Amino acid sequence: MSDGNYSRGLQLRSEISSEGELRLSLLEIPTPAPAPDEVVIRIEATPINPSDIGLLFGAADMRTARASGTPASPIITADVPPQRRASMAGRFDQSLPVGNEGAGVVVAAGTSEAAQALLGQTVAALGGAMYSQYRCLKLDQCLQLPAGTKPAEGASCFVNPLTALCMVETMRREGHTALVHTAAASNLGQMLQRLCLKTGTKLVNIVRNSRQVQLLRELGATWVCDSSSAAFTDELTQALTETAATVAFDAVGGGKLAGQILNCMEAALIRNHVETGRYGTSVHKQVYVYGSLDTGPTEISRGFGMSWSVGGWLLFPFLQRIGKVKVQQFKQRIASELKTTFASHYTREVSLRGALQLEAVADYGRRSTGTKYLINPSLA
Amino acid sequence: MSDGNYSRGLQLRSEISSEGELRLSLLEIPTPAPAPDEVVIRIEATPINPSDIGLLFGAADMRTARASGTPASPIITADVPPQRRASMAGRFDQSLPVGNEGAGVVVAAGTSEAAQALLGQTVAALGGAMYSQYRCLKLDQCLQLPAGTKPAEGASCFVNPLTALCMVETMRREGHTALVHTAAASNLGQMLQRLCLKTGTKLVNIVRNSRQVQLLRELGATWVCDSSSAAFTDELTQALTETAATVAFDAVGGGKLAGQILNCMEAALIRNHVETGRYGTSVHKQVYVYGSLDTGPTEISRGFGMSWSVGGWLLFPFLQRIGKVKVQQFKQRIASELKTTFASHYTREVSLRGALQLEAVADYGRRSTGTKYLINPSLA
Repeated sequence: MSDGNYSRGLQLRSEISSEGELRLSLLEIPTPAPAPDEVVIRIEATPINPSDIGLLFGAADMRTARASGTPASPIITADVPPQRRASMAGRFDQSLPVGNEGAGVVVAAGTSEAAQALLGQTVAALGGAMYSQYRCLKLDQCLQLPAGTKPAEGASCFVNPLTALCMVETMRREGHTALVHTAAASNLGQMLQRLCLKTGTKLVNIVRNSRQVQLLRELGATWVCDSSSAAFTDELTQALTETAATVAFDAVGGGKLAGQILNCMEAALIRNHVETGRYGTSVHKQVYVYGSLDTGPTEISRGFGMSWSVGGWLLFPFLQRIGKVKVQQFKQRIASELKTTFASHYTREVSLRGALQLEAVADYGRRSTGTKYLINPSLA
Repeated sequence: MSDGNYSRGLQLRSEISSEGELRLSLLEIPTPAPAPDEVVIRIEATPINPSDIGLLFGAADMRTARASGTPASPIITADVPPQRRASMAGRFDQSLPVGNEGAGVVVAAGTSEAAQALLGQTVAALGGAMYSQYRCLKLDQCLQLPAGTKPAEGASCFVNPLTALCMVETMRREGHTALVHTAAASNLGQMLQRLCLKTGTKLVNIVRNSRQVQLLRELGATWVCDSSSAAFTDELTQALTETAATVAFDAVGGGKLAGQILNCMEAALIRNHVETGRYGTSVHKQVYVYGSLDTGPTEISRGFGMSWSVGGWLLFPFLQRIGKVKVQQFKQRIASELKTTFASHYTREVSLRGALQLEAVADYGRRSTGTKYLINPSLA
């Protein structure tokens, strides 16, 4: 069951001290022996998602990042500004593993038949602590990938695909018939557009420049609005008039965008002859903030009546709400469309040590659309 | 059934032209003959609530208000700024009656026994168009007031009392155990505090100056936070730590207050040792904006994790949601506590003509706490 090669491995840790210093480092830890219903995965591909960056950097100001340690054991430190420290109190002085998801090869298995059947197979997993060379996980956290799938192809099997599926599911459950997505040229955004084309769901994409408009047009998008355009709110109102979208998923968070979307939704409803009373239309308009590309204040100019809501949206609580059966259906669907609807693309592959270089930290830390890192912990 | 005295009467109207001019005037209209299940009320008391002001002024800038017409038929006009006109498109060129609620004496009744039984009685009504000398309404819109109740005592029977009851009901239905209220020294705020004291509900009052702190303390309030104090957020966090309130009703709307409440709620949860994950606590924090004392942008600095929502809240859709039986229970309760829990106070009583004087418009238009007008349409 164990030949010693994988008995110990490196794991990336993030720690914020109560004095306000972020410290990223590698720790060598023993790999647990798998219980009967567990397997040990040699992780070969694990993406750096925006949600991972949140845990990785916390509230630190990464412009203060500095390198120390040794080539074999690099360390990155950075400062958390005093006014943002209170929000980190819940994680002070805890050395936290990072990495929501990844894929690799099963190198050891527990005694159960199901576990043994996975030996040597390529699996994806949603287990946390995936920025590790080896990871011991329960079978029900693993998804066996179709034959011929490489770990890099299965690395982003869960977070983005489930997020795209759950956005559409939220839209349906809450009675909306079309949706809006911001930062829409992201890996997730492209995936959502492919999913919506496949299911005939109307999607209004909001992007930040003309190059991104082009990218989404090439994917087959019908509605793409460029927030850098002088005619942005007119174009958005027109797209909302055509689609009647009344729910938006916003990755930006800060600035005026959420409020602009609500105002344009209301203007589109009025243009579509929805009755307006003294408090505007009675149609509920919803913006879900699921990211924080702009950490500044959200500025909402309220010109859209009283039937509105802006609030946080997170994948994991939503998965709990829809239940295991539905989630399992989603996972099977993802596995079967991994190279089409749910394909991901990366701009750079790095080792665990490579992820702790100043230049890499600055690059993926920008969270800019078009930059997506994949960590391969099996690289030296 | 009719002796002619009430066959015609004045009614206040608000109209906004598509050119952007607000016009307030009085119109003499015939009083409809009551159907079998209807009565005609001689309105003697009808309050100017913030919700009435919304319909009365629309998006007009009342600093531009000017008087015209005659002493017997005064007219007020004002300009709607161009950038706010679009939000008024739904009411362009419609002459709208105003006034949610009021009370008076039944001077004519339909042929049904129930209608005849109300002849000469004092009733309150929630019917719209109450800024009228006579109003014909269905029986089920009327609430017979307890013997000895004057119209002025029953004028605010519905909007504020139902709002206070429904805020507490919203708190309960959505799983919160205490609540926050802003602009808490208002008539509504005082009523809510009396209601909460009576039902043992924990209420955190946010007011805008030390005089208002004193006013609420005299009512018996335990938690009163002054937003003009340098220690405001500390005091609010302390009050939220003691009460564990996670829902707020905000009459202000604009500015930083809604965001401050959410941030202080999160800080209080952490102080109360609620577990925090990478996205803050998983406890849902809610701010309902039900007014717009500050029409400027809502500025939300998001330092409170992802379990949050800010949205509009309106009384009438909520009443529809809870259903007629519950609403009837509330109304009976209000009638029985009209001189205690649900008592209202007014600073000035005016006729319909008096309500259309520049000085009065400027006074009630400020919507300042402590200024509350009552219209008595039966005055000359």
